[in-house]
Order: sequence, then structure tokens, then C-alpha cells
Amino acid sequence: MGVDAPATVGTLLRDVDTPALLVDLDVFESNLKRMATDVSALSIDLRPHAKTHKSADIAKAQIESGAVGVCCQKVSEAEALVEAGISDILITNEVVGTRKIDRLAALSKRAKIVACVDNVANVEALENAAGYSGQTLDLLVEVNVGSSRCGVDPKTAVALAQRISESPHLRFSGLQAYHGSAQHVREFAERREAIASASAVVSDVVNQLQIAGIQCQRVTGAGTGTWQFEATSGVYTELQAGSYIFMDADYARNRHEPIEQPGNFGHSLFVYATVMSTPEPGRVVVDAGLKSMAFDAGMPLVVDDLATQYERPSDEHGNLILSKASMAYELGDKLKLIPGHCDPTVNLHDWYVCVRGDVVEAIWPVTCRGALF
Amino acid sequence: MGVDAPATVGTLLRDVDTPALLVDLDVFESNLKRMATDVSALSIDLRPHAKTHKSADIAKAQIESGAVGVCCQKVSEAEALVEAGISDILITNEVVGTRKIDRLAALSKRAKIVACVDNVANVEALENAAGYSGQTLDLLVEVNVGSSRCGVDPKTAVALAQRISESPHLRFSGLQAYHGSAQHVREFAERREAIASASAVVSDVVNQLQIAGIQCQRVTGAGTGTWQFEATSGVYTELQAGSYIFMDADYARNRHEPIEQPGNFGHSLFVYATVMSTPEPGRVVVDAGLKSMAFDAGMPLVVDDLATQYERPSDEHGNLILSKASMAYELGDKLKLIPGHCDPTVNLHDWYVCVRGDVVEAIWPVTCRGALF
Repeated sequence: MGVDAPATVGTLLRDVDTPALLVDLDVFESNLKRMATDVSALSIDLRPHAKTHKSADIAKAQIESGAVGVCCQKVSEAEALVEAGISDILITNEVVGTRKIDRLAALSKRAKIVACVDNVANVEALENAAGYSGQTLDLLVEVNVGSSRCGVDPKTAVALAQRISESPHLRFSGLQAYHGSAQHVREFAERREAIASASAVVSDVVNQLQIAGIQCQRVTGAGTGTWQFEATSGVYTELQAGSYIFMDADYARNRHEPIEQPGNFGHSLFVYATVMSTPEPGRVVVDAGLKSMAFDAGMPLVVDDLATQYERPSDEHGNLILSKASMAYELGDKLKLIPGHCDPTVNLHDWYVCVRGDVVEAIWPVTCRGALF
Repeated sequence: MGVDAPATVGTLLRDVDTPALLVDLDVFESNLKRMATDVSALSIDLRPHAKTHKSADIAKAQIESGAVGVCCQKVSEAEALVEAGISDILITNEVVGTRKIDRLAALSKRAKIVACVDNVANVEALENAAGYSGQTLDLLVEVNVGSSRCGVDPKTAVALAQRISESPHLRFSGLQAYHGSAQHVREFAERREAIASASAVVSDVVNQLQIAGIQCQRVTGAGTGTWQFEATSGVYTELQAGSYIFMDADYARNRHEPIEQPGNFGHSLFVYATVMSTPEPGRVVVDAGLKSMAFDAGMPLVVDDLATQYERPSDEHGNLILSKASMAYELGDKLKLIPGHCDPTVNLHDWYVCVRGDVVEAIWPVTCRGALF
């Protein structure tokens, strides 16, 4: 099982088979360096989210440029990255069910692993597994700071932290406080307000913990849309931004302040596609559809001509409604698409085809390919 | 690269790790048998589309129960199935670009392969590759019968067939005439009309071919939403339905006649998920989101309680807004979801976990996993 990569090192870009997941290495490295530089000027840790890229190569590049480790969303992702040599992983998610908890306990013997909880019964199950395997597990309490997905009500966070602290094989390591729904709020000022609100909630929980005699050493959260605000909040100690390394069409729709912000990263991730049919004037069909790009955050953009519209995706096809400027597309032409949402797009591919200029410089496996559970 | 399956043979259903792609074998076998029986009563071939399942195990089961072969959408899918022992494959798609055409030519030496064309330049490229590799390639002319994706205008089909017939290393094998957009038209009568219209178009092309002295031995098309109409059209010789083996929430929304139709198949494909957070009364979070289910055809349905609404999918999470009946969901409970669209859901997984009753009976690999190009 598993397919060969659509190119090899040295392949010319125009000869890469399609659809393929392309990384523009110049932009990628610029994004990597920019975030590392910006964060190094602040007193906060960077722990990029590997759910974006699922790649051991990229995780290693992030750690080499100053990140303290990476985040994962699933135990199986963490397993694949530990196997590939990553030694410090925060699972920013609850780990529920006997099978998953047993795997978490086993993995914690091989690397520095932290996971999240938002439920007393889950704390008990984790304590039992940790005791059975003879170790101590590090846990963060996830607090709902405004997105209303997982996470406890801030009012009950201290009680859950206490429960962890009282468990002989568990260690309370801090708070998970990610405001997911704030990431794609379009207006700069509204994003800033959302994180100000989240920071106030977290600050209050930290104070309550202190009153209860529980030290909170770590507050972790933030994404590519808001990280500047968490970074300067005085409350957060760690940033989890992930998409900055690639960017996507949806993040590009976020508005920034007129003054250039440190958060302005470039598009380094593309889906490379071929014009496979030219059925009528003004419309061509490309060979990249639902199975090679994510559409939950809208249609992809055509790099060479933003006025051309990608429409009517089906499993293996998409229609390009051409603007006048691009009426020249011919059968076999290849083009770069900027996917609407980078994380679930990467999830569809086995390989990154990494290009510098017009030549393939590296092929990276999607290390956590299929690691859904 | 590649993850282990979320279960092994003999695992109890409740112990399967999640999210997992489940097949209910009783329903699956019933769908398989029903289509085989219904089609065997008609004078038409069944060549199910393997883009639905990407599985050599399922392709073999379909062929053993009477199918003449299978369809694929991509050369890489066909390569993976030939490698796994399938010997008769129709690629229901144009094959464009030197790399792909070379792979098609190489594959044609190992199995009976047919592909589609809708462009003269592509015919020339295929002729050159076939000549270079010393063989004859079989080609269908794809005709636009109403969906306006790929395919030639019916008026130009004869000219393209002639071009193929005149090419020394190509053989004209018939017409590809799939009406994709008719599959999910809700009303029975409207679907029937759409295929009556497509059949009239095809019939006219077949007559024109005859006048031009070109024999059309094969007209292939149809999907799960319309196959009864193509089957009795007197024009189509082969059916490509694929989704019937699994069904999905979108196909379930098609309305049928009051009289029971042969097309009423059962849901055999599910995404198995765990309740991983119970943050507030009336809402729980499951561990299956954009990375384990397709949402292009709407939200998944909750098998045990159709009144419960799946909402706000994110990469690895989904919210269930509970109906009163299901207020009993507790942390760790597992449930079956019917995905909106089966094909791109399968595309996200490495493994099928096949259950009979409450026990895992088989684990099937998704043979064409990652075969996007």
C-alpha cells in the first residue's frame, strides 16, 4: 500500500505529475525564519502545531530554528513523529477510550508527552492507566475561552486541576486555552478583542489556581490568525501557531493593520494541477478536486490569475472559469492552486514535492499520513 | 509511512479505535448481491466504479459476482489495482501529460486497459506513446451528455472517433457517456428525464458513427442514482455505478417511486466515532471531523438518532446537538455516522474495518490510498 511520489529530486516543475502537493522552499524558509525571529524577540515559547503539516522533516526544521517542540492533535500523529525522532510533543486534545489511553501511556515512556483533559471521568481513566504502567502523565486542563468546542467552563477549571494534582500518577502542567474560532475573524481589531477576552478568562483562572495553592507554569494556545495578541498578553507562555508555515486562501482573507504586522506570511503550499480538458471557450477542467484539496474554507485560488474562478469541484475534477487574461490555457498546461484550507489539504496527500525555482529539490513524506486516531 | 489499522480481526466493535471506516458486511453483501441479481436479469454489463472504494478486495468481490471488470478514475488507481490482481479496467477519464500517458502505455502491457479522450491533441499524444511502446491502445470518446464537465460536444464526437480509427496504434472502442449531475437530482421523474435526454444524445451519435462506417460496440456510463434508466435505454451497453455498494447520506436523499425500485440499497459504510467531550447539556463533541469524513454533500447522519444534528466540523472534531432521545450520550460512547458522500470519505482512510454484528471479521486495506494522479 502507498504510492510513489509524483516526482523525484531534480525533476523540473513542469514534469511533476499532478495533482501534487507543492512546497515553495524559498517562501517556506522565509516563513520559518520570520516566525522564529519574531518570537525570539518575545519572552514566549513557540511550539508549532504539526496537525498542519504532519511532517517529521518540517517539525525538525521548526525545532532546529528555535521551537521548543511541536503540537499534535491525535495520539497516532504523535506516535508517527516520535518514531521519526521528535522527542517533545503536546497533544492539544483530549485522549478518550481505553485503547487510546494505553497508547498514550506507552508513548510517554518513549518521549516527553503532554495531553489535555476536560472531564473528571477521563482524569480517573488516565490515572488508572498511568498507575498500571508505573509512570506519571503530564496533563493540561483545557479551558473554553470562547470557541465552545471542547474545554471546561472556566469556573470549573480549578476543581479539575485539583483533581489532577491529587492523583498520584498525574501531574498538572497548566492550561490549554486555544481560541479556534477567533483565527479567521476577518477584522484585525475583532481578533484582538477576542484574544483580549480569552486572556482575561485565562488570567482569572490562573489567579484562582494560585489562591488554591496550585502553580500554573504553562498557558498554551494561539494560532496563525491571532498569535501576536497571545504573545503580548502577559498570560500565555507558549504559542501553537501552525498554518504560518504554509498559509492558505482563508488566512489570506484576514485583514491586517495598515502598518505591516509580523504575522504577514507568504503562501508556500500549493496544489499543482493539469488542464486535462478544454471543453468550451472560457472554461477548462483541471485534474484536482475533492480528493486532492479541502473545500471547507472555500474554493482554491489560481496563482497566475486571481480573476479566474475555480468552480464545481467533483472528486477528481474542477472547472476553471477563465478571466480574459488567462484565455490562453491549453491542454496539458500546469498551474498552482492555493487551497482554501491547508491542514485538511495536506491530510489528502502522501508526499510533499519541494521546489526551489523550477526544480524539485526534495521529496518529503507526509509522516502522519492516515494518522487519524 | 502508513499507520496500523484501528482494529484487528476478532476485535469487538466497541473496542475499535476511532475514527474508523466501518463496513457492515451483511448490508455490503446484500448490496453486492442485489445489484448482481438485478443486472443479470438485463442484457447489459456491470463494471462498477472503483473510485468509490479504492479496494482490491471489493473489486474482486464485484467481479466474482458477475461484473466484467471495474472502472478507475486515475492511472495510479489502475496501477494499484493491476498490482493487486485486477486485469480489466476502464479509466473513465482523460489521461493528459507525458508522464501519465507513459504510465498508461506501460500498464496496458500488463492488463486490459481502456481510457477516454475528448481532445485531438491528446489523441495525437496517445498515438505517439502507443507507437513508441509498440502496442495498440483502446480509447473511448467521452461525450458531454448534459453534465458539462469533460467530454466533447456530441456534434464533434464522430470526427474524434474517426481520428482515433485512422491512428495506427489506437483503437476506437466506443463512447463514455456519464451524466454525473443527474445522479443526485432528487425527483425520480427528473432523473428519468435526464437520462432519457442523455440516451437520445448518445443514440444520435451512434447513428452518425454508423453512417460514417464506424462501429460503436460499447456505450458506457450510469451511476447509482440513475442506472435503472441507462440499463433499459436500449443504448447503453455497460453500467458504471459504484456507490450502491456503500450508499451515503446524499444518495439517501434521492426520492424513489412508491413501487419498490431495484435501486434501493442499504447503508453499509460508516465512520465510527467516539464522544470525546461532553462540555454542556445538549452538546457533545465527537472525534471525527474534516480529516476523516467528506462534507461536500452535507453533514453526516447519526445512525442511532437521526434527530441529532452533527454541526460545526473542524479538522478533528464535530459537535453533536442532541435530540431529547439521545441525551444519554456519555464520555467514551461510540457511534456510527453515515457520511454525506462516500467516495471522498473513503479517500481519507487507510483501512476498512469490516464488521459482522458486533465483531470485526476482516480488515481490508484501501488499496489505492493516495493514488491521486
